[in-house]
Amino acid sequence: MRAAVFRGPGDVRVEQVPDPRIEAPTDAVVQVTHACICGSDLWSYRGLVDVPDLPSEGRRVGHEWLGVVTDVGPEVRSVAPGDRVIAPFVFSDGTCEFCTQGLHTSCVNGGVWGGDHDGGQGEAVRSPFADGTLVRLPPDVADEPALLAAALPLTDVMATGHHAAVSAGVTAGSTVAVVGDGAVGLCGVLAAHRLGAERIIALGHHRDRLDLASRFGATDVVIDDDPVPAVRDLTGGGAPCVLECVGTQSAVETALDVARDGGTVGYVGVPAGVKGVPLSKMFGRNIALRGGVAPARAYLPELLADVAAGELDPSPVLDRTVDLDGVPDGYAAMAQRTAIKVMIEM
Amino acid sequence: MRAAVFRGPGDVRVEQVPDPRIEAPTDAVVQVTHACICGSDLWSYRGLVDVPDLPSEGRRVGHEWLGVVTDVGPEVRSVAPGDRVIAPFVFSDGTCEFCTQGLHTSCVNGGVWGGDHDGGQGEAVRSPFADGTLVRLPPDVADEPALLAAALPLTDVMATGHHAAVSAGVTAGSTVAVVGDGAVGLCGVLAAHRLGAERIIALGHHRDRLDLASRFGATDVVIDDDPVPAVRDLTGGGAPCVLECVGTQSAVETALDVARDGGTVGYVGVPAGVKGVPLSKMFGRNIALRGGVAPARAYLPELLADVAAGELDPSPVLDRTVDLDGVPDGYAAMAQRTAIKVMIEM
Repeated sequence: MRAAVFRGPGDVRVEQVPDPRIEAPTDAVVQVTHACICGSDLWSYRGLVDVPDLPSEGRRVGHEWLGVVTDVGPEVRSVAPGDRVIAPFVFSDGTCEFCTQGLHTSCVNGGVWGGDHDGGQGEAVRSPFADGTLVRLPPDVADEPALLAAALPLTDVMATGHHAAVSAGVTAGSTVAVVGDGAVGLCGVLAAHRLGAERIIALGHHRDRLDLASRFGATDVVIDDDPVPAVRDLTGGGAPCVLECVGTQSAVETALDVARDGGTVGYVGVPAGVKGVPLSKMFGRNIALRGGVAPARAYLPELLADVAAGELDPSPVLDRTVDLDGVPDGYAAMAQRTAIKVMIEM
Repeated sequence: MRAAVFRGPGDVRVEQVPDPRIEAPTDAVVQVTHACICGSDLWSYRGLVDVPDLPSEGRRVGHEWLGVVTDVGPEVRSVAPGDRVIAPFVFSDGTCEFCTQGLHTSCVNGGVWGGDHDGGQGEAVRSPFADGTLVRLPPDVADEPALLAAALPLTDVMATGHHAAVSAGVTAGSTVAVVGDGAVGLCGVLAAHRLGAERIIALGHHRDRLDLASRFGATDVVIDDDPVPAVRDLTGGGAPCVLECVGTQSAVETALDVARDGGTVGYVGVPAGVKGVPLSKMFGRNIALRGGVAPARAYLPELLADVAAGELDPSPVLDRTVDLDGVPDGYAAMAQRTAIKVMIEM
């Protein structure tokens, strides 16, 4: 079969790789029909993070995908060949202490797609722990291309935006500031809107993305290089709920600075070059920091139900579509910021 | 009147200062009967933090005190001359957005005793916003020396330990790790015990203080220089609730390292030399950080009720008593760690 392989900074290729097959009785093999390129894939692509011990044949990539089950191991109970399934970006056994608490990202047997495991940017994937990992799509979603595109971001960015909002304590009537206008930030706006936030201020640097934030429910957008005074002014002293959706030092500091005293920053940006969170910005004002890597598996049923009902559609963040051969171009487009997020249709 | 004055590192003196008097209609004047020296007073005493613009006559010190009202302004309603009252370490108007939410430390008109305001380590204090700040002691407490000593730590360290425990989400049955065996850490143990924690692991460096932690309810003590493996071993992977009661870089990192995935660190140690909280220790494991400066005023009624009922007694942290003339010796004893915390009886 063919799959995208990361060979080094700026170098993603589509190559022949071994076909996946059932290796453990809890495995499934899934033919991938849709996948995405993630902003976090870009860290290594841009050379911003080291990829230690990269083998000469490179590493599989892609942790956002859905597809059709083609084979299952003898112990798999919840999915069967022919089922259309969606996978969160972390696989998990579904039975450990953390999975049963809804923190599947800390699964004692879990892992992220790609790297030492199959990546989703390819024709097929072996999924460990199929029962703990895969979620069968509702029939209406499975058969409707527009709903498949709406479901696809639930694998990561929509679940992550939702995690930021939940972690920040967003509820009906909340005032929320969202730091970042990438796919996660935009999904954070959508998640806050879905949870009933009354005021949503989107902070970013790109007019077109902030326009999408407005479509997703942002009531105000701030494009200033120093957004802190503007947000504090708009909110009369800061937002009680802040979503940090970038992961850089300056974004984290901005998030703390726009938080209202006693407020909570939901942090979901993958930390990249964060020297350290300045406790001095938090202590005197009782700012809390909650979040981390999103347990997408825990959120999938709830978010999928809304997709199936036509009430949740994050697919506008997928503003370019390529086929498998187009994956290298997709990486380049995201690196050059000519696309927010690229969908791959096999 | 006479009061302790900070003149510079290592130099606290008892000197003549102006008598306090009513300046605003919401003021009260309180004759101080009991006060404490705080670990945070030691930062400047030890020269670990700069005290900019220290005037030649020095600055008043002491933010933990209780006493008897001697005069009130015409708008004061809740206390009257003769009342025995206790003050939280921050005064607050009691009416602003933050006070009404219980976050009195963010009061828009508030401040900390000492510095530009009267300090509690002296014969009397002018209290701004008497109605918003002072709490009348229950009669049983006001007339009983042992209960006055039990109430005194509620001005700061006991309220702060309680804030750490509440922020970390301690409830009945919790497993808790407490980083720090100073007065705040010990009160954190007591607070966790009071909230019904089942397992309380105290981390520290001083055997005698950890013995007191055991009296306060710690089920385990760890005195290792590298306590992380021991705590992770005792808890089978980390504690869901961690109280950070020190405020140094190493204590913050230890607190994160001993937290269980998905756990919460309640941070209350006054940050001193914290370079930055490493987000990398938090992100992948969904560790939350909640807390800050304790809104002692919000907690006073609840904690005082338990003192009055004989169910809460943090006074063993007050292991030395001096009179006003003994304040300089009290500072020296705490700086040399021959006393955990010094009480001043006027």
